[in-house]
Amino acid sequence: MVDDEFVTPSNPSVNRRVALMFAMEAEAAPLIAHLGLTPDKSIGDPRLPFRYFSGNFRGLDLLVSENGKDPRYRVDNIGTEPAVLNTYVTIERFRPGLVINAGTAGGFIKHGGQIGDVYLGDPDYRFHDHRIQIPGFLEYGIGAYPSVVPAGLAIAAGLKTGVISTGNALDATPRDLEMLEANGARAKDMEAAAIAWVCWTMKVPFFALKSITDRVDGPHATPDEFLANLSRASQTLTEKLEAVLEFISKPETRD
Amino acid sequence: MVDDEFVTPSNPSVNRRVALMFAMEAEAAPLIAHLGLTPDKSIGDPRLPFRYFSGNFRGLDLLVSENGKDPRYRVDNIGTEPAVLNTYVTIERFRPGLVINAGTAGGFIKHGGQIGDVYLGDPDYRFHDHRIQIPGFLEYGIGAYPSVVPAGLAIAAGLKTGVISTGNALDATPRDLEMLEANGARAKDMEAAAIAWVCWTMKVPFFALKSITDRVDGPHATPDEFLANLSRASQTLTEKLEAVLEFISKPETRD
Repeated sequence: MVDDEFVTPSNPSVNRRVALMFAMEAEAAPLIAHLGLTPDKSIGDPRLPFRYFSGNFRGLDLLVSENGKDPRYRVDNIGTEPAVLNTYVTIERFRPGLVINAGTAGGFIKHGGQIGDVYLGDPDYRFHDHRIQIPGFLEYGIGAYPSVVPAGLAIAAGLKTGVISTGNALDATPRDLEMLEANGARAKDMEAAAIAWVCWTMKVPFFALKSITDRVDGPHATPDEFLANLSRASQTLTEKLEAVLEFISKPETRD
Repeated sequence: MVDDEFVTPSNPSVNRRVALMFAMEAEAAPLIAHLGLTPDKSIGDPRLPFRYFSGNFRGLDLLVSENGKDPRYRVDNIGTEPAVLNTYVTIERFRPGLVINAGTAGGFIKHGGQIGDVYLGDPDYRFHDHRIQIPGFLEYGIGAYPSVVPAGLAIAAGLKTGVISTGNALDATPRDLEMLEANGARAKDMEAAAIAWVCWTMKVPFFALKSITDRVDGPHATPDEFLANLSRASQTLTEKLEAVLEFISKPETRD
Protein backbone atom coordinates (compact mmCIF):
# COMPACT_ATOMS: atom_id res chain seq x y z
CA MET A 1 0.00 0.00 0.00
CA VAL A 2 1.52 3.30 -1.08
CA ASP A 3 0.45 6.57 0.43
CA ASP A 4 0.17 9.22 -2.27
CA GLU A 5 0.30 12.15 0.12
CA PHE A 6 3.71 11.19 1.40
CA VAL A 7 5.39 10.02 -1.78
CA THR A 8 4.17 12.60 -4.29
CA PRO A 9 7.22 14.67 -5.31
CA SER A 10 5.34 17.37 -7.15
CA ASN A 11 3.60 18.50 -4.01
CA PRO A 12 5.73 21.34 -2.58
CA SER A 13 4.13 20.92 0.81
CA VAL A 14 5.42 17.38 1.20
CA ASN A 15 5.91 16.81 4.89
CA ARG A 16 9.52 15.76 5.50
CA ARG A 17 9.12 15.16 9.23
CA VAL A 18 9.74 11.52 10.12
CA ALA A 19 9.08 10.17 13.63
CA LEU A 20 11.00 7.04 14.66
CA MET A 21 9.32 5.35 17.62
CA PHE A 22 11.36 3.02 19.83
CA ALA A 23 10.21 1.30 23.02
CA MET A 24 13.66 0.72 24.55
CA GLU A 25 16.63 3.00 25.08
CA ALA A 26 19.01 0.20 23.99
CA GLU A 27 17.17 -0.15 20.68
CA ALA A 28 17.39 3.58 19.92
CA ALA A 29 20.85 4.44 21.27
CA PRO A 30 22.95 3.28 18.26
CA LEU A 31 20.84 5.33 15.81
CA ILE A 32 20.90 8.44 18.01
CA ALA A 33 24.70 8.20 18.26
CA HIS A 34 25.22 7.35 14.58
CA LEU A 35 23.14 10.28 13.31
CA GLY A 36 24.26 12.69 16.04
CA LEU A 37 20.72 13.44 17.21
CA THR A 38 20.32 15.63 20.30
CA PRO A 39 17.80 15.66 23.17
CA ASP A 40 14.65 17.63 22.31
CA LYS A 41 12.56 18.95 25.20
CA SER A 42 10.19 20.88 22.94
CA ILE A 43 8.02 17.92 21.95
CA GLY A 44 7.01 16.08 25.07
CA ASP A 45 4.33 16.46 27.70
CA PRO A 46 6.31 16.92 30.95
CA ARG A 47 3.83 14.71 32.83
CA LEU A 48 4.76 11.73 30.65
CA PRO A 49 7.96 9.63 30.78
CA PHE A 50 8.77 9.73 27.06
CA ARG A 51 12.09 11.06 25.71
CA TYR A 52 12.84 12.69 22.37
CA PHE A 53 15.88 13.34 20.20
CA SER A 54 15.93 15.32 16.99
CA GLY A 55 18.17 16.18 14.09
CA ASN A 56 18.44 16.29 10.33
CA PHE A 57 19.39 13.59 7.86
CA ARG A 58 19.50 14.13 4.08
CA GLY A 59 16.89 16.87 4.33
CA LEU A 60 14.54 14.89 6.56
CA ASP A 61 13.56 16.31 9.95
CA LEU A 62 13.95 13.34 12.28
CA LEU A 63 12.46 12.81 15.69
CA VAL A 64 13.45 9.73 17.65
CA SER A 65 11.15 8.91 20.54
CA GLU A 66 11.70 6.45 23.36
CA ASN A 67 8.97 5.33 25.77
CA GLY A 68 11.14 6.17 28.78
CA LYS A 69 11.48 4.33 32.07
CA ASP A 70 9.08 3.06 34.71
CA PRO A 71 9.93 5.17 37.79
CA ARG A 72 9.55 2.22 40.18
CA TYR A 73 11.47 -0.53 38.41
CA ARG A 74 13.77 1.57 36.17
CA VAL A 75 12.94 -0.56 33.15
CA ASP A 76 11.85 0.63 29.72
CA ASN A 77 8.12 1.22 29.24
CA ILE A 78 7.66 -1.60 26.74
CA GLY A 79 4.29 -2.90 25.54
CA THR A 80 1.26 -1.49 23.79
CA GLU A 81 -0.07 1.01 26.31
CA PRO A 82 2.93 3.41 26.52
CA ALA A 83 3.42 2.97 22.74
CA VAL A 84 -0.13 4.16 22.06
CA LEU A 85 0.23 7.22 24.24
CA ASN A 86 3.65 8.19 22.90
CA THR A 87 2.44 7.81 19.32
CA TYR A 88 -0.48 10.15 19.96
CA VAL A 89 1.69 12.77 21.68
CA THR A 90 4.30 12.51 18.93
CA ILE A 91 1.72 12.94 16.16
CA GLU A 92 -0.03 15.75 18.02
CA ARG A 93 3.11 17.76 18.71
CA PHE A 94 5.59 16.85 15.93
CA ARG A 95 3.01 16.38 13.13
CA PRO A 96 5.08 13.86 11.18
CA GLY A 97 4.39 12.91 7.57
CA LEU A 98 5.56 9.39 8.36
CA VAL A 99 5.83 7.31 11.53
CA ILE A 100 8.28 4.40 11.68
CA ASN A 101 8.26 1.96 14.60
CA ALA A 102 11.72 0.45 14.96
CA GLY A 103 12.73 -2.22 17.43
CA THR A 104 13.41 -5.85 18.13
CA ALA A 105 11.19 -8.91 17.74
CA GLY A 106 11.02 -12.67 17.80
CA GLY A 107 11.37 -14.55 14.51
CA PHE A 108 10.31 -17.99 13.33
CA ILE A 109 12.75 -20.72 12.28
CA LYS A 110 9.94 -22.39 10.33
CA HIS A 111 9.66 -19.27 8.18
CA GLY A 112 13.42 -18.82 7.72
CA GLY A 113 13.81 -16.12 10.36
CA GLN A 114 17.40 -15.72 11.65
CA ILE A 115 18.92 -13.60 14.41
CA GLY A 116 19.79 -10.24 12.85
CA ASP A 117 17.23 -10.40 10.05
CA VAL A 118 15.27 -7.17 9.79
CA TYR A 119 11.61 -7.38 8.84
CA LEU A 120 9.48 -4.68 7.24
CA GLY A 121 5.79 -5.03 8.17
CA ASP A 122 3.78 -6.07 5.11
CA PRO A 123 0.87 -5.99 4.43
CA ASP A 124 -0.39 -5.22 7.92
CA TYR A 125 -0.02 -5.36 11.72
CA ARG A 126 -2.06 -7.74 13.87
CA PHE A 127 -2.62 -8.57 17.52
CA HIS A 128 -2.28 -12.17 18.68
CA ASP A 129 -3.44 -11.67 22.28
CA HIS A 130 -6.72 -9.80 21.69
CA ARG A 131 -9.00 -12.83 21.75
CA ILE A 132 -12.64 -11.71 21.66
CA GLN A 133 -14.87 -14.51 20.42
CA ILE A 134 -17.85 -12.37 19.42
CA PRO A 135 -18.50 -11.63 15.72
CA GLY A 136 -17.10 -8.22 14.73
CA PHE A 137 -15.11 -7.98 17.97
CA LEU A 138 -13.08 -10.99 16.79
CA GLU A 139 -11.86 -9.16 13.69
CA TYR A 140 -11.51 -5.87 15.58
CA GLY A 141 -9.27 -7.64 18.10
CA ILE A 142 -6.89 -8.90 15.43
CA GLY A 143 -6.73 -5.41 13.98
CA ALA A 144 -4.86 -5.87 10.69
CA TYR A 145 -3.90 -2.19 10.46
CA PRO A 146 -2.21 -1.37 7.15
CA SER A 147 1.47 -0.87 6.49
CA VAL A 148 2.10 2.14 4.27
CA VAL A 149 5.33 1.19 2.51
CA PRO A 150 7.05 3.24 -0.22
CA ALA A 151 7.35 1.05 -3.33
CA GLY A 152 10.74 -0.61 -3.68
CA LEU A 153 11.84 -0.01 -0.10
CA ALA A 154 12.24 -3.65 0.96
CA ILE A 155 14.53 -4.53 -1.95
CA ALA A 156 16.53 -1.29 -1.77
CA ALA A 157 17.23 -1.71 1.95
CA GLY A 158 17.59 -5.51 1.99
CA LEU A 159 14.63 -6.18 4.25
CA LYS A 160 12.55 -9.29 4.71
CA THR A 161 8.82 -8.67 4.70
CA GLY A 162 5.81 -10.14 6.47
CA VAL A 163 3.07 -9.62 8.99
CA ILE A 164 4.30 -8.29 12.35
CA SER A 165 2.10 -9.57 15.15
CA THR A 166 1.87 -7.83 18.51
CA GLY A 167 1.11 -8.93 22.06
CA ASN A 168 1.99 -7.79 25.57
CA ALA A 169 3.97 -10.90 26.56
CA LEU A 170 7.62 -11.68 25.82
CA ASP A 171 6.85 -15.41 25.82
CA ALA A 172 4.25 -17.28 23.77
CA THR A 173 1.68 -19.71 25.16
CA PRO A 174 0.28 -22.52 22.98
CA ARG A 175 -2.74 -20.28 22.30
CA ASP A 176 -0.46 -17.40 21.32
CA LEU A 177 1.39 -19.70 18.91
CA GLU A 178 -1.93 -20.68 17.28
CA MET A 179 -2.89 -17.03 16.90
CA LEU A 180 0.57 -16.11 15.54
CA GLU A 181 0.20 -18.89 12.97
CA ALA A 182 -3.33 -17.77 12.06
CA ASN A 183 -2.03 -14.20 11.71
CA GLY A 184 0.69 -15.38 9.31
CA ALA A 185 3.25 -13.73 11.59
CA ARG A 186 6.87 -13.47 10.48
CA ALA A 187 7.88 -11.35 13.50
CA LYS A 188 6.40 -11.20 17.02
CA ASP A 189 6.76 -7.91 18.86
CA MET A 190 5.13 -5.88 21.67
CA GLU A 191 4.22 -2.53 20.07
CA ALA A 192 3.78 -2.42 16.27
CA ALA A 193 0.03 -3.11 15.95
CA ALA A 194 -0.76 -0.64 18.73
CA ILE A 195 1.21 2.13 17.02
CA ALA A 196 -0.35 1.12 13.71
CA TRP A 197 -3.81 1.53 15.25
CA VAL A 198 -3.09 5.12 16.34
CA CYS A 199 -1.56 6.02 12.95
CA TRP A 200 -4.43 4.40 11.04
CA THR A 201 -6.95 6.23 13.21
CA MET A 202 -5.19 9.57 12.73
CA LYS A 203 -4.43 8.95 9.03
CA VAL A 204 -0.65 9.17 9.32
CA PRO A 205 1.43 6.84 7.08
CA PHE A 206 3.12 4.13 9.12
CA PHE A 207 5.42 1.16 8.80
CA ALA A 208 7.53 -0.89 11.22
CA LEU A 209 11.04 -2.34 11.04
CA LYS A 210 11.88 -5.18 13.45
CA SER A 211 15.27 -6.79 14.00
CA ILE A 212 15.17 -10.42 15.16
CA THR A 213 16.67 -11.09 18.61
CA ASP A 214 15.25 -14.56 19.28
CA ARG A 215 13.37 -17.45 17.71
CA VAL A 216 9.80 -17.94 18.94
CA ASP A 217 9.99 -21.58 17.85
CA GLY A 218 13.66 -22.05 18.75
CA PRO A 219 15.49 -24.12 21.39
CA HIS A 220 16.39 -21.26 23.76
CA ALA A 221 14.24 -19.48 26.36
CA THR A 222 13.13 -16.16 24.89
CA PRO A 223 14.41 -13.90 27.73
CA ASP A 224 17.94 -15.40 27.52
CA GLU A 225 18.13 -15.20 23.75
CA PHE A 226 16.56 -11.73 23.71
CA LEU A 227 19.08 -10.28 26.18
CA ALA A 228 22.03 -12.01 24.50
CA ASN A 229 21.16 -10.56 21.08
CA LEU A 230 19.61 -7.18 21.95
CA SER A 231 22.76 -5.15 21.35
CA ARG A 232 23.68 -6.88 18.06
CA ALA A 233 20.13 -6.72 16.75
CA SER A 234 19.91 -3.02 17.59
CA GLN A 235 23.15 -2.42 15.67
CA THR A 236 21.78 -4.23 12.63
CA LEU A 237 18.54 -2.28 12.99
CA THR A 238 20.50 0.97 12.89
CA GLU A 239 22.19 -0.01 9.60
CA LYS A 240 18.85 -0.87 8.03
CA LEU A 241 17.22 2.29 9.37
CA GLU A 242 19.93 4.39 7.76
CA ALA A 243 19.29 2.63 4.45
CA VAL A 244 15.55 3.22 4.84
CA LEU A 245 15.99 6.92 5.61
CA GLU A 246 18.41 7.24 2.71
CA PHE A 247 15.80 5.69 0.40
CA ILE A 248 12.98 7.86 1.71
CA SER A 249 15.02 11.05 1.44
CA LYS A 250 15.63 10.66 -2.28
CA PRO A 251 13.32 12.71 -4.50
CA GLU A 252 13.17 9.93 -7.10
CA THR A 253 11.50 7.53 -4.63
CA ARG A 254 8.67 9.97 -4.52
CA ASP A 255 7.69 9.47 -8.16
CA MET B 1 -5.17 4.84 49.72
CA VAL B 2 -6.78 8.24 50.09
CA ASP B 3 -5.80 11.18 47.97
CA ASP B 4 -5.54 14.33 50.03
CA GLU B 5 -5.83 16.70 47.11
CA PHE B 6 -9.22 15.37 46.12
CA VAL B 7 -10.82 14.84 49.50
CA THR B 8 -9.68 17.94 51.40
CA PRO B 9 -12.84 19.98 52.04
CA SER B 10 -11.10 23.09 53.29
CA ASN B 11 -9.42 23.68 49.99
CA PRO B 12 -11.68 26.07 48.05
CA SER B 13 -10.08 25.05 44.79
CA VAL B 14 -11.20 21.43 45.19
CA ASN B 15 -11.69 20.13 41.71
CA ARG B 16 -15.26 18.85 41.34
CA ARG B 17 -14.84 17.56 37.80
CA VAL B 18 -15.33 13.79 37.62
CA ALA B 19 -14.62 11.80 34.45
CA LEU B 20 -16.42 8.48 34.04
CA MET B 21 -14.67 6.30 31.46
CA PHE B 22 -16.64 3.51 29.74
CA ALA B 23 -15.43 1.26 26.95
CA MET B 24 -18.85 0.27 25.58
CA GLU B 25 -21.88 2.31 24.62
CA ALA B 26 -24.18 -0.31 26.23
CA GLU B 27 -22.34 0.06 29.55
CA ALA B 28 -22.69 3.86 29.58
CA ALA B 29 -26.17 4.33 28.09
CA PRO B 30 -28.23 3.71 31.27
CA LEU B 31 -26.21 6.25 33.27
CA ILE B 32 -26.36 8.88 30.51
CA ALA B 33 -30.15 8.46 30.32
CA HIS B 34 -30.65 8.34 34.08
CA LEU B 35 -28.67 11.52 34.76
CA GLY B 36 -29.86 13.32 31.62
CA LEU B 37 -26.34 13.93 30.32
CA THR B 38 -26.01 15.49 26.87
CA PRO B 39 -23.48 15.05 24.04
CA ASP B 40 -20.40 17.26 24.49
CA LYS B 41 -18.34 18.05 21.40
CA SER B 42 -16.04 20.46 23.21
CA ILE B 43 -13.77 17.83 24.75
CA GLY B 44 -12.71 15.45 22.04
CA ASP B 45 -10.03 15.40 19.40
CA PRO B 46 -12.01 15.17 16.14
CA ARG B 47 -9.45 12.72 14.71
CA LEU B 48 -10.30 10.18 17.42
CA PRO B 49 -13.41 7.98 17.70
CA PHE B 50 -14.24 8.77 21.33
CA ARG B 51 -17.62 10.23 22.40
CA TYR B 52 -18.42 12.46 25.37
CA PHE B 53 -21.50 13.42 27.39
CA SER B 54 -21.62 15.99 30.17
CA GLY B 55 -23.90 17.34 32.86
CA ASN B 56 -24.18 18.16 36.53
CA PHE B 57 -25.05 15.93 39.48
CA ARG B 58 -25.17 17.20 43.08
CA GLY B 59 -22.65 19.91 42.32
CA LEU B 60 -20.25 17.62 40.47
CA ASP B 61 -19.30 18.40 36.87
CA LEU B 62 -19.59 15.02 35.17
CA LEU B 63 -18.06 13.89 31.92
CA VAL B 64 -18.95 10.44 30.59
CA SER B 65 -16.62 9.17 27.90
CA GLU B 66 -17.08 6.19 25.62
CA ASN B 67 -14.31 4.72 23.48
CA GLY B 68 -16.49 4.89 20.36
CA LYS B 69 -16.76 2.44 17.48
CA ASP B 70 -14.32 0.75 15.14
CA PRO B 71 -15.22 2.19 11.71
CA ARG B 72 -14.73 -1.15 9.94
CA TYR B 73 -16.57 -3.56 12.21
CA ARG B 74 -18.95 -1.16 13.98
CA VAL B 75 -18.06 -2.62 17.37
CA ASP B 76 -17.01 -0.75 20.52
CA ASN B 77 -13.30 0.05 20.86
CA ILE B 78 -12.76 -2.22 23.86
CA GLY B 79 -9.36 -3.15 25.28
CA THR B 80 -6.40 -1.33 26.73
CA GLU B 81 -5.14 0.68 23.76
CA PRO B 82 -8.20 2.88 23.11
CA ALA B 83 -8.70 3.17 26.89
CA VAL B 84 -5.19 4.59 27.33
CA LEU B 85 -5.63 7.14 24.59
CA ASN B 86 -9.09 8.25 25.72
CA THR B 87 -7.89 8.62 29.31
CA TYR B 88 -5.04 10.88 28.21
CA VAL B 89 -7.28 13.03 26.02
CA THR B 90 -9.90 13.24 28.78
CA ILE B 91 -7.35 14.29 31.42
CA GLU B 92 -5.67 16.72 29.03
CA ARG B 93 -8.87 18.46 27.97
CA PHE B 94 -11.33 18.03 30.88
CA ARG B 95 -8.75 18.21 33.72
CA PRO B 96 -10.75 16.04 36.13
CA GLY B 97 -10.04 15.82 39.85
CA LEU B 98 -11.09 12.17 39.74
CA VAL B 99 -11.28 9.52 37.03
CA ILE B 100 -13.62 6.55 37.46
CA ASN B 101 -13.52 3.60 35.07
CA ALA B 102 -16.92 1.93 35.02
CA GLY B 103 -17.83 -1.20 33.13
CA THR B 104 -18.40 -4.91 33.15
CA ALA B 105 -16.08 -7.76 34.11
CA GLY B 106 -15.79 -11.46 34.79
CA GLY B 107 -16.09 -12.68 38.38
CA PHE B 108 -14.91 -15.79 40.19
CA ILE B 109 -17.26 -18.33 41.75
CA LYS B 110 -14.40 -19.49 43.97
CA HIS B 111 -14.23 -16.02 45.49
CA GLY B 112 -18.02 -15.62 45.88
CA GLY B 113 -18.48 -13.50 42.76
CA GLN B 114 -22.07 -13.46 41.42
CA ILE B 115 -23.65 -11.98 38.31
CA GLY B 116 -24.67 -8.42 39.20
CA ASP B 117 -22.10 -7.93 41.96
CA VAL B 118 -20.25 -4.65 41.58
CA TYR B 119 -16.57 -4.55 42.55
CA LEU B 120 -14.54 -1.52 43.59
CA GLY B 121 -10.86 -1.93 42.74
CA ASP B 122 -8.81 -2.27 45.93
CA PRO B 123 -5.92 -1.97 46.58
CA ASP B 124 -4.68 -1.86 42.99
CA TYR B 125 -5.01 -2.75 39.30
CA ARG B 126 -2.88 -5.42 37.64
CA PHE B 127 -2.29 -6.94 34.23
CA HIS B 128 -2.51 -10.71 33.79
CA ASP B 129 -1.34 -10.87 30.16
CA HIS B 130 1.86 -8.81 30.35
CA ARG B 131 4.23 -11.71 30.87
CA ILE B 132 7.83 -10.49 30.73
CA GLN B 133 10.16 -12.93 32.48
CA ILE B 134 13.06 -10.53 33.05
CA PRO B 135 13.68 -9.05 36.53
CA GLY B 136 12.16 -5.59 36.84
CA PHE B 137 10.17 -6.04 33.63
CA LEU B 138 8.23 -8.82 35.37
CA GLU B 139 6.94 -6.46 38.07
CA TYR B 140 6.50 -3.62 35.57
CA GLY B 141 4.31 -5.91 33.47
CA ILE B 142 1.97 -6.71 36.33
CA GLY B 143 1.71 -2.99 37.08
CA ALA B 144 -0.18 -2.89 40.40
CA TYR B 145 -1.24 0.73 39.92
CA PRO B 146 -2.97 2.13 43.02
CA SER B 147 -6.68 2.61 43.56
CA VAL B 148 -7.40 5.98 45.18
CA VAL B 149 -10.60 5.28 47.08
CA PRO B 150 -12.40 7.76 49.37
CA ALA B 151 -12.64 6.21 52.85
CA GLY B 152 -15.97 4.52 53.53
CA LEU B 153 -17.08 4.40 49.90
CA ALA B 154 -17.36 0.61 49.56
CA ILE B 155 -19.62 0.23 52.58
CA ALA B 156 -21.73 3.29 51.79
CA ALA B 157 -22.40 2.16 48.22
CA GLY B 158 -22.65 -1.58 48.92
CA LEU B 159 -19.66 -2.59 46.83
CA LYS B 160 -17.47 -5.67 46.98
CA THR B 161 -13.75 -4.93 46.85
CA GLY B 162 -10.69 -6.60 45.39
CA VAL B 163 -7.97 -6.50 42.80
CA ILE B 164 -9.23 -5.88 39.27
CA SER B 165 -6.97 -7.61 36.74
CA THR B 166 -6.81 -6.54 33.11
CA GLY B 167 -6.01 -8.29 29.85
CA ASN B 168 -6.90 -7.87 26.19
CA ALA B 169 -8.78 -11.17 25.82
CA LEU B 170 -12.39 -11.92 26.72
CA ASP B 171 -11.50 -15.54 27.44
CA ALA B 172 -8.84 -16.91 29.79
CA THR B 173 -6.21 -19.49 28.89
CA PRO B 174 -4.73 -21.77 31.56
CA ARG B 175 -1.78 -19.35 31.79
CA ASP B 176 -4.15 -16.40 32.21
CA LEU B 177 -5.92 -18.26 35.04
CA GLU B 178 -2.59 -18.79 36.80
CA MET B 179 -1.74 -15.11 36.47
CA LEU B 180 -5.22 -14.05 37.63
CA GLU B 181 -4.79 -16.26 40.70
CA ALA B 182 -1.31 -14.88 41.37
CA ASN B 183 -2.72 -11.35 41.03
CA GLY B 184 -5.41 -12.13 43.62
CA ALA B 185 -8.00 -11.03 41.07
CA ARG B 186 -11.65 -10.68 42.10
CA ALA B 187 -12.70 -9.22 38.74
CA LYS B 188 -11.21 -9.71 35.25
CA ASP B 189 -11.68 -6.84 32.82
CA MET B 190 -10.12 -5.36 29.68
CA GLU B 191 -9.33 -1.72 30.58
CA ALA B 192 -8.90 -0.86 34.29
CA ALA B 193 -5.13 -1.36 34.73
CA ALA B 194 -4.41 0.55 31.51
CA ILE B 195 -6.48 3.54 32.66
CA ALA B 196 -4.89 3.24 36.10
CA TRP B 197 -1.44 3.46 34.50
CA VAL B 198 -2.28 6.74 32.74
CA CYS B 199 -3.84 8.23 35.89
CA TRP B 200 -0.93 7.11 38.06
CA THR B 201 1.52 8.56 35.57
CA MET B 202 -0.34 11.87 35.40
CA LYS B 203 -1.08 11.96 39.14
CA VAL B 204 -4.86 11.99 38.83
CA PRO B 205 -6.86 10.06 41.48
CA PHE B 206 -8.49 6.95 40.02
CA PHE B 207 -10.68 4.02 40.92
CA ALA B 208 -12.72 1.49 38.93
CA LEU B 209 -16.16 -0.02 39.40
CA LYS B 210 -16.90 -3.29 37.60
CA SER B 211 -20.24 -5.10 37.37
CA ILE B 212 -20.01 -8.87 36.94
CA THR B 213 -21.48 -10.25 33.70
CA ASP B 214 -19.94 -13.73 33.70
CA ARG B 215 -17.97 -16.21 35.81
CA VAL B 216 -14.39 -16.79 34.67
CA ASP B 217 -14.46 -20.18 36.45
CA GLY B 218 -18.09 -20.93 35.66
CA PRO B 219 -19.85 -23.51 33.47
CA HIS B 220 -20.84 -21.22 30.58
CA ALA B 221 -18.75 -19.91 27.70
CA THR B 222 -17.76 -16.31 28.51
CA PRO B 223 -19.08 -14.70 25.30
CA ASP B 224 -22.56 -16.24 25.80
CA GLU B 225 -22.79 -15.34 29.46
CA PHE B 226 -21.34 -11.87 28.82
CA LEU B 227 -23.89 -11.02 26.11
CA ALA B 228 -26.78 -12.50 28.13
CA ASN B 229 -25.98 -10.38 31.18
CA LEU B 230 -24.53 -7.17 29.67
CA SER B 231 -27.76 -5.17 29.88
CA ARG B 232 -28.66 -6.26 33.42
CA ALA B 233 -25.11 -5.74 34.69
CA SER B 234 -25.00 -2.26 33.13
CA GLN B 235 -28.26 -1.40 34.92
CA THR B 236 -26.85 -2.54 38.27
CA LEU B 237 -23.67 -0.60 37.51
CA THR B 238 -25.74 2.56 36.99
CA GLU B 239 -27.40 2.18 40.40
CA LYS B 240 -24.05 1.76 42.11
CA LEU B 241 -22.51 4.65 40.18
CA GLU B 242 -25.29 6.93 41.35
CA ALA B 243 -24.60 5.85 44.95
CA VAL B 244 -20.88 6.48 44.43
CA LEU B 245 -21.43 9.94 42.96
CA GLU B 246 -23.88 10.77 45.76
CA PHE B 247 -21.22 9.76 48.31
CA ILE B 248 -18.46 11.72 46.59
CA SER B 249 -20.62 14.83 46.28
CA LYS B 250 -21.19 15.17 50.02
CA PRO B 251 -18.89 17.66 51.76
CA GLU B 252 -18.63 15.42 54.84
CA THR B 253 -16.97 12.65 52.83
CA ARG B 254 -14.16 15.11 52.20
CA ASP B 255 -13.12 15.29 55.86
